[in-house]
Amino acid sequence: MRRTFESVPGSVVAPKGFLASGVYCDIKRLGTGKGSDKGQKRDLALIVSEVPATVAGLFTTNQVCAAPVKVCIPRAAKGRAQAIVANSGNANACTGPRGLRDALEMAAVAAARIHLPAEHVLVASTGRIGVPMPMANVRDGIRRAAGLLGNAPEHGDEVAEAIMTSDTRPKQIAIEMKLAGRPVRIGGVCKGAGMIQPGMSVTGRRPAAMPVAGLHATMLAFLTTDAAIEAKLLQRMLTHAVARSFNRITVDGDMSTNDTVLVLANGLAGHQQLRWRPAAKPSREIGLFQAGLDHVCLELARMIVRDGEGVTRFVTLRLSGARTCAEADAAVRAVANSALVKASWFGGDPNWGRIIDALGYSPARIVEERVDIGYSAPGAPTVVWSLKKGRPTTTSFKQLCAAVAPREFDLHIRLNLGPASAILYAADLTEEYVDFNKGDVSDPTKLGG
Amino acid sequence: MRRTFESVPGSVVAPKGFLASGVYCDIKRLGTGKGSDKGQKRDLALIVSEVPATVAGLFTTNQVCAAPVKVCIPRAAKGRAQAIVANSGNANACTGPRGLRDALEMAAVAAARIHLPAEHVLVASTGRIGVPMPMANVRDGIRRAAGLLGNAPEHGDEVAEAIMTSDTRPKQIAIEMKLAGRPVRIGGVCKGAGMIQPGMSVTGRRPAAMPVAGLHATMLAFLTTDAAIEAKLLQRMLTHAVARSFNRITVDGDMSTNDTVLVLANGLAGHQQLRWRPAAKPSREIGLFQAGLDHVCLELARMIVRDGEGVTRFVTLRLSGARTCAEADAAVRAVANSALVKASWFGGDPNWGRIIDALGYSPARIVEERVDIGYSAPGAPTVVWSLKKGRPTTTSFKQLCAAVAPREFDLHIRLNLGPASAILYAADLTEEYVDFNKGDVSDPTKLGG
Repeated sequence: MRRTFESVPGSVVAPKGFLASGVYCDIKRLGTGKGSDKGQKRDLALIVSEVPATVAGLFTTNQVCAAPVKVCIPRAAKGRAQAIVANSGNANACTGPRGLRDALEMAAVAAARIHLPAEHVLVASTGRIGVPMPMANVRDGIRRAAGLLGNAPEHGDEVAEAIMTSDTRPKQIAIEMKLAGRPVRIGGVCKGAGMIQPGMSVTGRRPAAMPVAGLHATMLAFLTTDAAIEAKLLQRMLTHAVARSFNRITVDGDMSTNDTVLVLANGLAGHQQLRWRPAAKPSREIGLFQAGLDHVCLELARMIVRDGEGVTRFVTLRLSGARTCAEADAAVRAVANSALVKASWFGGDPNWGRIIDALGYSPARIVEERVDIGYSAPGAPTVVWSLKKGRPTTTSFKQLCAAVAPREFDLHIRLNLGPASAILYAADLTEEYVDFNKGDVSDPTKLGG
Repeated sequence: MRRTFESVPGSVVAPKGFLASGVYCDIKRLGTGKGSDKGQKRDLALIVSEVPATVAGLFTTNQVCAAPVKVCIPRAAKGRAQAIVANSGNANACTGPRGLRDALEMAAVAAARIHLPAEHVLVASTGRIGVPMPMANVRDGIRRAAGLLGNAPEHGDEVAEAIMTSDTRPKQIAIEMKLAGRPVRIGGVCKGAGMIQPGMSVTGRRPAAMPVAGLHATMLAFLTTDAAIEAKLLQRMLTHAVARSFNRITVDGDMSTNDTVLVLANGLAGHQQLRWRPAAKPSREIGLFQAGLDHVCLELARMIVRDGEGVTRFVTLRLSGARTCAEADAAVRAVANSALVKASWFGGDPNWGRIIDALGYSPARIVEERVDIGYSAPGAPTVVWSLKKGRPTTTSFKQLCAAVAPREFDLHIRLNLGPASAILYAADLTEEYVDFNKGDVSDPTKLGG
């Protein structure tokens, strides 16, 4: 169900009872002087609920997963938490037993400062893989962040800034709805940019059903709400929302070791707690909150693709007519991750040949003579078809070029073989992406994650 | 078995009884005047044996396959042929019934001119998808080519040039060996450049065993030999050679609609025909010819990767310790096709984090704590390890940079989980690749394939 929601300022501190802060503690150890946040991008963030909250999370299914993910999975599974400490500049991945100790200590230092049990603090990191955490800087950062907590909109901005890596802009949102007559808010921040094709699950293990097509670029998303929701229901709702948002995006087809989505629900909106009743059909309140959560996740997920490394075009792929959902997903990912297709998007070249070629080598069953390929403005009903039943239409090359010229457009693919469909939010491949990710070995500060 | 072979000039016309020619007939219809080959890259080639030959072929497993491939599969299966007509500038793919008629006519026109049964002429095309063949130009080109056939080395050069698309240089080779005391030669030409990750089979259908990991860029390879070989044995030997060469390369992970490898064996070397005896172990002659065919295919396959679009680095991935061959292949392709890994190769950044990340999201089973990653000079025994059992080694960043600085190096990956290994020849991802493939919609001559 498509609903519109009133947006409000403050992102993660918009809901009642949430405090946040972000500081700079030189986690990349560039020696630019920790302690002063002036003129430096923040790199450490703290999000705290004034009261214990229910929690739900989803985590990368990469078999190589970072220490903070290993710490979060069991803690989120307990369903109860109160704070999140996150950093950019270091992924704390492939750091061995020391990395695990460091992730646990980050939670412990934060817990001590804000007087919580350590197991109620969750941890997330993003940055270069295989570098030990600079714990002296991190400890100092966490302590200062704890002293700077606040609930003004700027505190949400600080968190959004602190988790950025190659992001060019902060990504945040907050909405308000009425549940059982009470105002309820959902806030969120996220970061992305590169190594982005998340495929997250509750356990970090890959369900047989989940496409392995790829996942890659670290994406972190932290959601807060003052709604009152039983943990088990919150997890189901988050899984539903992520399956339609963060797990449907790709920037470069690479899945990260650190992908993490967390939501804290502290119940301070004061309505009767939403509970999961397996038998009963979901209440109106549950449906409404789910729609709100879906909306927040989808908006944040799209922000990630639009701000992907070097991205100049945002393409929504709408594929239908596959035999099965798995084939629909495989086919749409083959197209969205084809270097040739992505390069043609960059060039504004409506090259349907590369699209049908990618469909043809995907694991999905396709029949050339049935494939339709077309374009429309985002969400628009009128489609300009370049291919019908595998044959070029009479649409002129000029018209097709006009259809793929805008910064954002929808790509429609109909396989006409079955009932399954899939949607994927993707980006083009640009020289800037390559230039950024080739790094600069002569300047460690310019090495990619 | 590694053997060295004496190289000889002439590529496809080096073996006894083969004639060839290449002409320019403006297949892209740039209006640069067909008829004169002066100053224009040739775009149509003819290879003819003076006597009927046994033939074997392998073809793209892309579900969208070009008209010439549809014509070749049944003709090659008959095991007997005498000529190949090939063009660049137009793939004759997604061209429907007309495309099929055009491919058949190309063979018929050539057959009429050189007095052969049409079904003994094979056809191959490469170029942009979805454009009808300019048959007037093609007919003219075939007729002129038939009049210019010859067996001087330059005639082999003409074929190598005529099949080039985005290739920057012709690719050819010829070797000589002694079979049962008689001199026997194998010659070959090929083209590649982009949309290159072939996965070819005899029928064009994908065997269950074959990885769908991808295949993409048209690659064409035409081999000739004066050896006398029964068709069934020739097909087995070609399948063996291609499984270790053309099906082990990737430039951009895209599999083409037109990938084709053909070999003609006309028997004029005059030795006793090599035959396939299921029970008996292969004769010394069969082993020697197989080694020669493997050598020719591998050399040509590597030329394709080295001359891939925008390629600056040639990387041989050597993965071992996977649980199964399918997992070894999936793991090595995940690394070789990761945009981030390829960009780091371009930058000379020994970024093992991106490599283990790609292994982690591949369908293959891996255990972080067991993975070893290292580098060596091509084929060299001494490996500089950057990662051992999932932990960084003490090797300095400077040393690792030196290991990945050369234009060619080997990447060694040990999963240490099982007996299976895989090798893959891959390339980096450069700004030049993106710039080339974004095309230029304002100039149709600059549109990629």
